[in-house]
Amino acid sequence: MIETPYLLYLGSSRDPLAVKTARGIMIWRPDSVVGEVVSAESEMTVGADRMTIEEGAKRGAKTLIIGYANSGGYIEESNLEDIVKALELGLNVASGLHHDLQENALIKEAAERQNCKLHNVRRSDKAFKVGTGTKRPGNRLLTVGTDCSVGKMFTSLAIQKEMEARGENADFRATGQTGIFIAGEGVPVDAVISDFISGSVESLSPAREDGGWDIIEGQGSLFHPAYAGVSLGLLHGAQPDHLILCHEANRAHMRHLPGRSVPELEDCIKANLWAAKVVNPEAHFSGIALNSRNLDKAEADRLCAQLEREFKLPCQDPMRHGVERIVDHVLI
Amino acid sequence: MIETPYLLYLGSSRDPLAVKTARGIMIWRPDSVVGEVVSAESEMTVGADRMTIEEGAKRGAKTLIIGYANSGGYIEESNLEDIVKALELGLNVASGLHHDLQENALIKEAAERQNCKLHNVRRSDKAFKVGTGTKRPGNRLLTVGTDCSVGKMFTSLAIQKEMEARGENADFRATGQTGIFIAGEGVPVDAVISDFISGSVESLSPAREDGGWDIIEGQGSLFHPAYAGVSLGLLHGAQPDHLILCHEANRAHMRHLPGRSVPELEDCIKANLWAAKVVNPEAHFSGIALNSRNLDKAEADRLCAQLEREFKLPCQDPMRHGVERIVDHVLI
Repeated sequence: MIETPYLLYLGSSRDPLAVKTARGIMIWRPDSVVGEVVSAESEMTVGADRMTIEEGAKRGAKTLIIGYANSGGYIEESNLEDIVKALELGLNVASGLHHDLQENALIKEAAERQNCKLHNVRRSDKAFKVGTGTKRPGNRLLTVGTDCSVGKMFTSLAIQKEMEARGENADFRATGQTGIFIAGEGVPVDAVISDFISGSVESLSPAREDGGWDIIEGQGSLFHPAYAGVSLGLLHGAQPDHLILCHEANRAHMRHLPGRSVPELEDCIKANLWAAKVVNPEAHFSGIALNSRNLDKAEADRLCAQLEREFKLPCQDPMRHGVERIVDHVLI
Repeated sequence: MIETPYLLYLGSSRDPLAVKTARGIMIWRPDSVVGEVVSAESEMTVGADRMTIEEGAKRGAKTLIIGYANSGGYIEESNLEDIVKALELGLNVASGLHHDLQENALIKEAAERQNCKLHNVRRSDKAFKVGTGTKRPGNRLLTVGTDCSVGKMFTSLAIQKEMEARGENADFRATGQTGIFIAGEGVPVDAVISDFISGSVESLSPAREDGGWDIIEGQGSLFHPAYAGVSLGLLHGAQPDHLILCHEANRAHMRHLPGRSVPELEDCIKANLWAAKVVNPEAHFSGIALNSRNLDKAEADRLCAQLEREFKLPCQDPMRHGVERIVDHVLI
C-alpha cells in the first residue's frame, strides 16, 4: 500500500507524454495530491499546485511519486538531491521507472537511515500461488482490448466511479503501474513470474461476499504477440462475469508492430469469450468502450451507434460520453 | 550451456517419482552420463553405473546434476558434503530445485573458490526482449497439450530423434527443467517475467536458414487456468508451422484440479489453431501423440485408430508405437 497524500515529482521533463503517470493520478485522484514539484527551468504542469519538496512535506505529503518516464528508465542525476531531500523530510518514494530506486546508493542509504519506504511499482516482490480457476464469490468486471493502450485503465476507472456514484460498493483493481499509483496498491501483472500470472490476479481480486464489485484493469490483448500470455493469464485469474471490450477507432496497426493490423471486434469478442468461459461459464460482454480520439464528434457518435446495432451492446467513448449506459447494462 | 558429461546425484531419495529428472536424462542422453551417485542407505537407481563423487570426477564428469526433487525444493543437509566435494573436485553443479544453489553459503563459497559454475535451471537470469510475432525463417514444430504432464517433452524428443535418424537437421528446444538438462540449454519459460514469455521463446528458436527443424517443447495447456498464459505466450513465440496435440487417455481431471475435466480434443485443436494463426497463418496440426499408459495395448491401438479417423491425422503413442507415422506426415 502506497501512503497518500502524494507529492508529484515531474523533474525537468518537457514531454507531456513522459508525465502521463502524474497526469493519470491528477485525473483520478486529485484529492490525494498536495502538489507538483517541477525543476526551475521547466514549464511542465499536470494541474496541481507547484511547490518545493519542503512545502509538499509541510502540507502533509506522505509519498513522493516519481511521475516522469525516460527512455533509460532510471532516476536522473539532477533529480537525486530532491529525492534524497524528500526522504530526509520523512517522505516515502514511489517509482514506476524500470530501474529500482534501491539501485542508487544515495537513495538506498537515505531511505534506510530515515526508515522510509521505497516502492518500485514495476517490480513484483510478492510471492504468489499458482492459479486454480476455482469459482469464487463476488461480482467481477474486466476490461479487455483489441490492442494495448486503447483505454482499458481509463474505462475501468470510469466504470468504478460511475458505480460508486450509484451507491454500489466498487473497487478498482490495478494491474499496471499508473493504475497502482491511482489505487495505491495492485499487482503489476506483466512483472510477475509467468507461472503465477493467473494466481497473482486471483490474489488481487479475492472472494468477496458483500455484494460489491471488483472492476479489474485489463492489460494487452489476446491478439498482441508480445503480451497475449499476460492477457490470457489475467483473464483466467480475473474470472470475470462481465467483459467490456476496449477499442481505438482508426488505429493503423497493433502497438509497436507496423504492418500488423488490429483484430476485428467480432474476433476479439469470440476469443475472449472462449477464454473467459474456461473459468466462468457465465462470462459475457456487457459493453464496448470506444476510444474515438482519432474521430470528430459526429463520426464518434455514428460509429458508437453502428457498433451498438452490430453487437447489441451499449457502446460509448468513456472520455466523450461517460459510461452511464454501459453501467446501466452491467447493473441490469 | 551446461557442460557434459553429467554425474547424476540421486541423494537419499526413495521415491521413483522424485528422481524423474535423472531418469529423463538417462532415457534421452545416456551417452552424456558417466554414472549415478546414491547414498549408502538407498537402493535407488536410474540405470547408470553407481559410483562415488570421486570416481565420477575421475571418469571425466563435468557437471553434477541434482537429480532429485523434494517438497521444500532445497538441497538436503545430508547431501551438502557431497556437493561441496564435487565442487572441490572441479565439477560444476546444476539443480532444478526451487531454491538457488547460491542460497547455501557453503556451496556458494566452494563454487567461487573453485571457479565452478552453479546452474539453477528453474531460474531465468537472462534479459529477454519482448516478442514481435514477426515471421522468421525455419521449420518449427511445437507440442501442445490438453493438460500439463501428458507427454509433450517425451513426444518432442521422440520426434527430434526420429527426424535425426532420417538425416534431417533437427534441434530439440527445451522450455522446462528436465528438457534443459537433456538439451544442455534452453529457457525455463514458466520462470520468465510474464512480459517476456513470447520474446524468450523467439530467442530460444531464432531464425534458421539451414532447412533444419526446431522441435519446441510445449508447456501446460490453453485450458489449464494456472498455466494458460505461459502456453499462449509460448505458442506465439514458437510460431510453429506444425502442431502436435498431446493427450493422455482416461485422465480423470486437469492436473492438480479435481472436478475440472480435460477439454475435448476438438476444442483444444480449435483453440490452439486460432492462437497459432495470430502469428503464422500456415499453422496446422500434423499429428496426435496419445499417452495411453492407462490403457492396455488393444485399447490403445483402438483409440489411436479412432482418433485418426475422427481428426484425419496420424495418432500414435510415442512410448508404445514410436512417432514414425507422425514424422512421415510432418515431412510430406
